[in-house]
Amino acid sequence: MLTKNNVKFIKSLQLKKYRQKERLFIVEGEKNTVELLKSTYEIKSLVISQAFLERYESLVKTTNSEIVIVEAKQLAGLGSYQTNEQALAVVHEPEEVHSIQSGFQLVLDDIRDPGNLGTIIRIADWYGIPQILCSETTAEFYNPKTISASMGSIFRIPLVRLPLESFLAESKHPVYGALLDGKNVHQIDFPQNGYLVIGNESTGIKDNLLPFIKHRVTIPRIGAAESLNAAMATAIICDNIFRKA
Amino acid sequence: MLTKNNVKFIKSLQLKKYRQKERLFIVEGEKNTVELLKSTYEIKSLVISQAFLERYESLVKTTNSEIVIVEAKQLAGLGSYQTNEQALAVVHEPEEVHSIQSGFQLVLDDIRDPGNLGTIIRIADWYGIPQILCSETTAEFYNPKTISASMGSIFRIPLVRLPLESFLAESKHPVYGALLDGKNVHQIDFPQNGYLVIGNESTGIKDNLLPFIKHRVTIPRIGAAESLNAAMATAIICDNIFRKA
Repeated sequence: MLTKNNVKFIKSLQLKKYRQKERLFIVEGEKNTVELLKSTYEIKSLVISQAFLERYESLVKTTNSEIVIVEAKQLAGLGSYQTNEQALAVVHEPEEVHSIQSGFQLVLDDIRDPGNLGTIIRIADWYGIPQILCSETTAEFYNPKTISASMGSIFRIPLVRLPLESFLAESKHPVYGALLDGKNVHQIDFPQNGYLVIGNESTGIKDNLLPFIKHRVTIPRIGAAESLNAAMATAIICDNIFRKA
Repeated sequence: MLTKNNVKFIKSLQLKKYRQKERLFIVEGEKNTVELLKSTYEIKSLVISQAFLERYESLVKTTNSEIVIVEAKQLAGLGSYQTNEQALAVVHEPEEVHSIQSGFQLVLDDIRDPGNLGTIIRIADWYGIPQILCSETTAEFYNPKTISASMGSIFRIPLVRLPLESFLAESKHPVYGALLDGKNVHQIDFPQNGYLVIGNESTGIKDNLLPFIKHRVTIPRIGAAESLNAAMATAIICDNIFRKA
């Protein structure tokens, strides 16, 4: 059973300041909770309906966290979703470890919208990208909208926040960037190891990073739209990086 | 000057039922209003700040609509945007005309999220797609979120709502569909004229349409995400349809 204080504490995690203070965040809904349970993330409390327990009993048994069974109708009230009759988890924010040095990785320069960040994480997971490096100003990783848009992919893709300028200055692999005045993405032969820099939704890649972008990549336009959104551009360029021939 | 009744009327158009009753909708912000003014859409009233008038005077002069100059701070209060110091327009919903028979067109089967619809319209505009055909259940074209996500592209791409089953049954061009068990999109040689069907965000293309999908298209997956969202899949497949060689 949840006490009034439990409920108050869980609800407080809808606010960034409490997430940051406690280094805890909330995962909501069936799909995301299932992906969480399959991941290495450390769960503090798992609040689930009887139906969820019955459906995922063997998966639920794998966690060492506290488990609270509640009425389905109580769940939506705890989190940010309008409907949720399945599950909610309070999760420890993992340590960020910048350990992966190979493969083709994404570098996000100031992606501000949590929905865009989550969508980009989902794309990275689709293409098997090993890690995403983010500027200090990129949206919060564990914002409920980031988690929701990532559709569980956030639990599989390591995310690291770091100062991009010094990182790119010392990069050992080629650095590509999505820009409007580059080479046609269809004509680029991408290497095994590299970085693709994606810029801010309105202003693109910041001036201070441009000197490090040795390969400017452009998606050819046929029609009249001025630009594509950051997540779209990421999806299209990733599809070109990982296509075989 | 806006009367209290003008303000009340404009605000009422934030609700779908009043948009449908009046066959009017709202366009907000600088970018969207500029694109609107360049389009053939019929504007009923244009509510702008002095700054917007000065910046776009020649464009503003092209409209026959009523023009109201207001204080910048009044604008956001009229619409759904949190900030808007530039412009807002009340616009007549255009007649839907299904007149374009050639080119590669998109067919949306039950895209429910207005943000996804707007993003798909923006992609269509980037690739020069001549028309988008939508199921009766697809999101509202003139929802503020659709307009916002389209970034002005909605004023350039004809949108038509029609019964998809009978339309596809009589289609003269090949019908492709985004599905998880189809042919690798990288290996398909797309024709000049055709239709790409994109299904609902959760349930994909409906069973009743599957018999008409003669060409199942799949984006190869390398990683672990279960799926891509509908707008991402559209972007990637369009990039493959319109790439040269």
